[in-house]
Amino acid sequence: MNNKKGKKSYYAVIFTSKRTSLEEGYNDASNQMELLAKKQPGFLGLETAREEIGITISYWESLEAIKKWKQNSEHLIAQKNGKEKWYSQFHVRICKVEREYSFSK
Amino acid sequence: MNNKKGKKSYYAVIFTSKRTSLEEGYNDASNQMELLAKKQPGFLGLETAREEIGITISYWESLEAIKKWKQNSEHLIAQKNGKEKWYSQFHVRICKVEREYSFSK
Repeated sequence: MNNKKGKKSYYAVIFTSKRTSLEEGYNDASNQMELLAKKQPGFLGLETAREEIGITISYWESLEAIKKWKQNSEHLIAQKNGKEKWYSQFHVRICKVEREYSFSK
Repeated sequence: MNNKKGKKSYYAVIFTSKRTSLEEGYNDASNQMELLAKKQPGFLGLETAREEIGITISYWESLEAIKKWKQNSEHLIAQKNGKEKWYSQFHVRICKVEREYSFSK
């Protein structure tokens, strides 16, 4: 996931959402999609947090890998359920990571 | 913040972090930086959530606007305090939003 000089560029998918009050099936599907995403070719990482809104960012090697994950058959079912049951709204942004830096104690 | 056909592209700064146990001054500084960011030229929006990790995404019109915000004098003080006191680690990614879509009930 590094993008230092000479390293290959990569992509971030920013998924921000607001939930409905319907809990049924959500946690299981969410965990299952995280496990499944991690098995996809080109997957690099995933970070998530939820308070008033949920933010999930997944990192990918290429736009092609993102497209394939979006079209994954189990993921398509989860996307359908997400719209029908679990999310009142969401926003997806596909981004190219242009540069980065980090700090660690 | 739309990026539909014909709309101008824009940038996302993904800030992911882990906090230290030191609470003193953190909430005040965090709220103050959010207010200050919103006043900067080129600022488009901000979304944030924290659970195990914190994720804050700010959206900007240009790389120049991001650079200026990074160099803002009050922000520089907050960045210094962040490293010394509030964060055990963080990662900043500067991203170009390539495309997006949304869903709303």
